Amino acid sequence: MKAQIIAVGTELLLGDTLDTNSYYLSGQLKELGIDLYRRSTVGDNRQRLLEELKDALSSVDLVITTGGLGPTDDDLTKEVCCEALGKEMVLNQESYDRLKKNFEDKPEQLELNKKQAMFPEDAIVFENKNGTADAGLIESDGKAIIFLPGPPRELKPIFKNSVRPLLEKWTDSVIVSETLNMAGIGESDIYEKVRELALYSENPTVAPYATKNKVILKISAKAETREKALDLIKPMKEQIYCILDEYIYGENEESIEEAIYKLLDKYSLSIMTGESVTGGMIASRLINVDGISDYLKRSFVVYSNEAKIELLKVDPQTIDKYGVVSEQVATEMAKNMHEIYDCDCCIATTGYASGEEAGKVFLGLAFKDKLKCLELKLTGNRNTVRKRACDIALSEMRKMIVENVSRETF
Amino acid sequence: MKAQIIAVGTELLLGDTLDTNSYYLSGQLKELGIDLYRRSTVGDNRQRLLEELKDALSSVDLVITTGGLGPTDDDLTKEVCCEALGKEMVLNQESYDRLKKNFEDKPEQLELNKKQAMFPEDAIVFENKNGTADAGLIESDGKAIIFLPGPPRELKPIFKNSVRPLLEKWTDSVIVSETLNMAGIGESDIYEKVRELALYSENPTVAPYATKNKVILKISAKAETREKALDLIKPMKEQIYCILDEYIYGENEESIEEAIYKLLDKYSLSIMTGESVTGGMIASRLINVDGISDYLKRSFVVYSNEAKIELLKVDPQTIDKYGVVSEQVATEMAKNMHEIYDCDCCIATTGYASGEEAGKVFLGLAFKDKLKCLELKLTGNRNTVRKRACDIALSEMRKMIVENVSRETF
Repeated sequence: MKAQIIAVGTELLLGDTLDTNSYYLSGQLKELGIDLYRRSTVGDNRQRLLEELKDALSSVDLVITTGGLGPTDDDLTKEVCCEALGKEMVLNQESYDRLKKNFEDKPEQLELNKKQAMFPEDAIVFENKNGTADAGLIESDGKAIIFLPGPPRELKPIFKNSVRPLLEKWTDSVIVSETLNMAGIGESDIYEKVRELALYSENPTVAPYATKNKVILKISAKAETREKALDLIKPMKEQIYCILDEYIYGENEESIEEAIYKLLDKYSLSIMTGESVTGGMIASRLINVDGISDYLKRSFVVYSNEAKIELLKVDPQTIDKYGVVSEQVATEMAKNMHEIYDCDCCIATTGYASGEEAGKVFLGLAFKDKLKCLELKLTGNRNTVRKRACDIALSEMRKMIVENVSRETF
Repeated sequence: MKAQIIAVGTELLLGDTLDTNSYYLSGQLKELGIDLYRRSTVGDNRQRLLEELKDALSSVDLVITTGGLGPTDDDLTKEVCCEALGKEMVLNQESYDRLKKNFEDKPEQLELNKKQAMFPEDAIVFENKNGTADAGLIESDGKAIIFLPGPPRELKPIFKNSVRPLLEKWTDSVIVSETLNMAGIGESDIYEKVRELALYSENPTVAPYATKNKVILKISAKAETREKALDLIKPMKEQIYCILDEYIYGENEESIEEAIYKLLDKYSLSIMTGESVTGGMIASRLINVDGISDYLKRSFVVYSNEAKIELLKVDPQTIDKYGVVSEQVATEMAKNMHEIYDCDCCIATTGYASGEEAGKVFLGLAFKDKLKCLELKLTGNRNTVRKRACDIALSEMRKMIVENVSRETF
């Protein structure tokens, strides 16, 4: 099955709105095994939209439109669909009843929005639970048009709950992907370790990707149903866990801070940070995990030398002798946090985010009385350097916990 | 002048990459007064790209393509441009010299990449300072094709430095916009105050917008040149400063933390945070401003009651009596920070980011011995609540500084 997506909206052509719908739908069609032939964007213009629709219907089987379902005169998608297919617009009673309920106290508003309950004859109507623009599907001569509302928070639930189940019936296969999130290992090293699988396994396929702040391994399977695809993925996933277990911190959407939280929770470990260059960013990331308050009681932003001395008892002589951005200071910060606050996992950062030595960062880590220091050389602007230092700090802390808890008896 | 953008890349149709280039270019064309007729996306497929290009050339004057300038066989854009216009590919010596320099030590790589120095005959070549895919422009029969590389960090500088100045000469007008960033006032209140200007001023136009974390007022002028447009904007901007001065914290790209930094710097004020629910996020935002180390020495993440008591000397009885998420605790945190650390501007937060009372946040602010407390009721998920609290805290701190320094004598 071949498809085209047509995004409708003058605001898109003016560069006022970033089109994330086409991106989302492209990924969904890929998963459904539907070949996306082309995407296009047109303004709220009857003639151009009509040309685009006719053109699409002449080359693909399925057209998905986004936008143009609003109540105003320049919302034209459904009308133009009718024109392209030679159909009439009729009132959909269920859709109208929902509108009536919505505008119970505003009869004049109901009148203005009545257009949103008008659909091409024979259309299947999909309820929009997050707005007044119901969506729909219309078929004619073996071709189908699906029209969806423009706001992503309305489009996505309709696609997921109403459109996708229907398309799954139309296609004979779906592609399902699962990702394993990794840290402490580079893309090429992962590839080296799973090379045989990546090269010779055809279904599921295995491929590593480096994204902005992590490396992932994607396992994708094609099968008749989602369940069957997951059955294909399962043994491959187990095989990969055997090879890469120590680097995998989570699956799919799981973040590294959630992975750390699980470890803290499992082994009853406390955590804290003493941050100079990252300035609270690591603590803030950790605190984004619900439940972490049991393990993170306090943290320090020690941006000046005096704060490092005063709050983390760094020896002024260490700073004088080695400089504040040094292995010695980072290590002392982590060590002292553990000792003063009796904290199990301590993360310390000191570095330069701008200036001549921008990107030079020392990471001090303590797991109980074990200490570790890393020197990082990062590139990018101030914000990028700080974020990257934060990613690595979390990833290294996780690794240090995993390495050490396995050797202890709990 | 009418234009079309064609994004080239199979990764776009597979939903692997979000197309931000088309969005960026759409906004740029709007500013240049060039009418964007249509946008489209095709895969790395010779036939489909050729059809798309021919179709575009038959209806618009200017076609901009993105992507497909790489060294591999499926990078086809320049070749297909030649095919559409009946031109030959020839080696561009300057581009090749740059490649040679780039691959000095890798002759086999130079051979593989040689294709990137091949261009349609008569093309103007634009140097790519951030990659090996140089861009170009080719004209034929009064139509022009501009081909740009796919990675945004390569595309944007080339467009800005090479393409835009050229297009400015082609169009008889440009649209220039300046924005005023505001805090402490809502979109509808701004509209109320500048209503007359928004309704009756045609050039420049004035319009308020609410974005994710700020409200902006956009002044846009159309004129023959950028300079003339700025001349039109200037008196309007002055007029708006007269009306909204107290709410405007910056212009264009300036963030609220940069605005705070300027105030700290101007009046030599120190700042610190004591954060519970925001967990270091406010400090981290402030530390993103280069130079803030002169004014921010330390900050605390006081996530537990014991940390609030220990580090900020909050009276345990206050917590017992009013609860830890209370006006009294927030105020005491701010007050004590000022007193203990002799800090001029203190920001304290306490609240719930999840659970039954999620979104209930108290903000304690101290400017020297003046205290202020705000109760916030925020909606959204854990991360949204925390970010929103952070935005408001910074915005309110800025307001408090502005209000108070104007009354003091420095």
